[in-house]
Amino acid sequence: MNHRIVFSTTGMVLYIEAAMMLVPLLIAVGFREYSQALAFLATILVAALGGFFLRLIAPPQRQDIFSKEGFVIVAMAWIALSLVGALPFVLCGAIPSYVDALFETVSGFTTTGATLLSDVEALSYSIQFWRCFTHWIGGMGILVFVTIISSKAPDRTMHILRAEMPGPTMDKIVPRVRDGVKILYLIYIILTLLEFGAFLLAGMPVYDAIIHAMSTAGTGGFGMLNSSMAGYSPLCQWIVAFFMVLFAINFNLFFLVIMGRWRTALRSHELWCFLSIILVATGIIACNIAPLYGAKDAIRHSFFQVSAIISTTGFASADYGLWPALSQGVIFVLLFLGGCSGSTAGGLKISRVMLLAQSIRREMQHVLHPRSTRVVRFENKKVDETVISSCNTYFTLYAVCITVIFLLICWEPLGLPTTLSAAITCFNNVGPGFGLISPSGNYSVFSPFSKLVLSGAMLLGRLEIYPLLIALTPTAWTKRR
Amino acid sequence: MNHRIVFSTTGMVLYIEAAMMLVPLLIAVGFREYSQALAFLATILVAALGGFFLRLIAPPQRQDIFSKEGFVIVAMAWIALSLVGALPFVLCGAIPSYVDALFETVSGFTTTGATLLSDVEALSYSIQFWRCFTHWIGGMGILVFVTIISSKAPDRTMHILRAEMPGPTMDKIVPRVRDGVKILYLIYIILTLLEFGAFLLAGMPVYDAIIHAMSTAGTGGFGMLNSSMAGYSPLCQWIVAFFMVLFAINFNLFFLVIMGRWRTALRSHELWCFLSIILVATGIIACNIAPLYGAKDAIRHSFFQVSAIISTTGFASADYGLWPALSQGVIFVLLFLGGCSGSTAGGLKISRVMLLAQSIRREMQHVLHPRSTRVVRFENKKVDETVISSCNTYFTLYAVCITVIFLLICWEPLGLPTTLSAAITCFNNVGPGFGLISPSGNYSVFSPFSKLVLSGAMLLGRLEIYPLLIALTPTAWTKRR
Repeated sequence: MNHRIVFSTTGMVLYIEAAMMLVPLLIAVGFREYSQALAFLATILVAALGGFFLRLIAPPQRQDIFSKEGFVIVAMAWIALSLVGALPFVLCGAIPSYVDALFETVSGFTTTGATLLSDVEALSYSIQFWRCFTHWIGGMGILVFVTIISSKAPDRTMHILRAEMPGPTMDKIVPRVRDGVKILYLIYIILTLLEFGAFLLAGMPVYDAIIHAMSTAGTGGFGMLNSSMAGYSPLCQWIVAFFMVLFAINFNLFFLVIMGRWRTALRSHELWCFLSIILVATGIIACNIAPLYGAKDAIRHSFFQVSAIISTTGFASADYGLWPALSQGVIFVLLFLGGCSGSTAGGLKISRVMLLAQSIRREMQHVLHPRSTRVVRFENKKVDETVISSCNTYFTLYAVCITVIFLLICWEPLGLPTTLSAAITCFNNVGPGFGLISPSGNYSVFSPFSKLVLSGAMLLGRLEIYPLLIALTPTAWTKRR
Repeated sequence: MNHRIVFSTTGMVLYIEAAMMLVPLLIAVGFREYSQALAFLATILVAALGGFFLRLIAPPQRQDIFSKEGFVIVAMAWIALSLVGALPFVLCGAIPSYVDALFETVSGFTTTGATLLSDVEALSYSIQFWRCFTHWIGGMGILVFVTIISSKAPDRTMHILRAEMPGPTMDKIVPRVRDGVKILYLIYIILTLLEFGAFLLAGMPVYDAIIHAMSTAGTGGFGMLNSSMAGYSPLCQWIVAFFMVLFAINFNLFFLVIMGRWRTALRSHELWCFLSIILVATGIIACNIAPLYGAKDAIRHSFFQVSAIISTTGFASADYGLWPALSQGVIFVLLFLGGCSGSTAGGLKISRVMLLAQSIRREMQHVLHPRSTRVVRFENKKVDETVISSCNTYFTLYAVCITVIFLLICWEPLGLPTTLSAAITCFNNVGPGFGLISPSGNYSVFSPFSKLVLSGAMLLGRLEIYPLLIALTPTAWTKRR
């Protein structure tokens, strides 16, 4: 284990965080929120000093890193990011308890959107901005950003990216990794701006448009109103629903579209599977809630809620906790799925679900004809045996994680729907759940211990388990490789 | 696909069912329950005629069968067994609706023990007996019995057994399969008699002792009292708890003990893992419920409930639905595990859980050192790569089954704890769940459609998915291999 590279990269991440916090600082000054401005200034100093200190004890060096270091770097960077990012909330008094502030910050960076604030509207402008800005930063990944600005060896970059980017495999869209990452970030920015523009055209105030564009882009789910998106016009809700689906689609497909390769993009099996699930789930729920809202509103609410849950954003246009049992059942299952790989969405990822389905088909074939050999294909390419096996093991590990998280918080006397769905929804980075944490509730009902567990669950889910697990393995920190 | 062998074996199973039903017929006559006697007589005629008809259109033949036939035979035999076994309940009026009777019978044969009777004590002696006799028959497997009495080719026998016996692999304890099966059945009978004797010594009435010995042996869970085992003395509860654990242990180990190979039996990793889980779960729950019952009773109730759930029996010494959240959370997780492979217990099976844990460890190793190769070992033997991959895929399929079952019944307005736990507990053949189906409730709250779905779930779980799934695949029925 190369400790120096871990510490120096973490230091770099803190520098970037300090730089990014200049935006809410300026907003605080602009809106004359001086106590908030002081809080941001203090945090910027802490982050900069922390970064400086880390890079002082571990000066950056040009050296190859191995996949182990990649995982540990990502874990450490995200933990440091969250620990420092929580400070402004505490310093300005918006969230007095540091554990609570940490929960809110982790929920922001991991784009979960689980909140423990009962009155979001009471937040000041700059704090409101920072809260949703964390979604936007976390959506694309902070280390993805590091690779853009630093000039590290491509090998090193690849290991870090692989540990941070979600999904079972990583496609290279252009030969040089750094160029590919730059393109993805550019697409991310363009899509965010497009949504911002759409909001303005729909008559949303500028500030609200910025906040919601960032929150949707990261598939986070923090909003500005206590009623989430229910307080905005149906047109705004349609825009959000549409962009939630967009941000849960593999960004490589947008690159193909920009390059004029429409047909290739539209041949993606993952895309069609994703859209089909949305269509079927929307249909079922719309029929189920039609008696409550009438046909037109039922379609809007069901499409909004399905895309909010499957994209792991977690916005609400209505409280699905009051919907009939069938709708709730479908939403419960959607909590697990997640969006496409290579998007900002969390969850299992559609490509993984498809690979799992294929491996079941193959096993059935094997059971029927023990001597047959069958190749698993995905997106018209033969899938390597190790990828299938990794995907299956990942799913097992995924189930184990949910079980352990549930066991750690199940003692809370909040009822099975609340504790179980909290474990599932936090781990999958969705946000709302059932019972006391349905869209009308919030996470303040949990004890500080459970808030810490759920914060860990959000990080575990966002980084797809391995980085955090490996960082917690003592043998990973030993010098010997 | 060889249709003849499927029909003739199913016919044979019906013959055996007719023969077995002579026991409750005699009991009905003995207790002068004449309407019940008529019901059993009529059912025996139906079963015998059905068997005769099936063997008339498909006379038995000496021919090799392939694994596909093995699966379809097992599926068809169990379905026929349940369809006919439900008749006595309807004919004598104990359960007027055929769908209800089918649910109760499937629950019996699959040793689930989920009941929809609110007043079990109102049942007549012979019906009571038949209800629990189904547990005893289903525990060991009906086709296991067929292989003992028929003189089929060993190859054929093996395929059928492999499809019916639970667990990821099947060990041969003696060279000839039929001899091995005979030994296992003998152990089953001896253990049942031992429990019966223990009950008598503890002062339980003879009839009650027979009923509960059969119900425990099959790890079923049907009892005679509305309060399940809570109506019996603490000593009787300890006996049941002890035997539930015993019947959830791999029967091969008992064979080793009988052969004097104590040490080999005690080296079983699965056994120690199973006992450790019981110990830890009992400890946690006992501490958690001590304030409710006092230390001594808390230990009894927690040990009883943990062994009842992990062995997938489902007896109750108290209503855990009223216990604190932590205890309920632990019980919820135990619903999935199940006992050891090669026992009468259902669920995932401990050996499978251990294999899954090993494959996670290997994957972690692979992630850290991509070029390393690591051998998975189980019970000190190298595990074949295909077994690990099958085990992982089985787990995925297991999760898919629970999801589909849940989606099919989630529309019932009974609340998430009830519908979700019904899907889990029926599929794992446990019996009781949470909410309205906790030990104090029953399944009568479900609609006929959901009862049919849950009946299918119980069969799917008992036969470990593949037999039923393959029997439902149209291509499996085509002539061409």
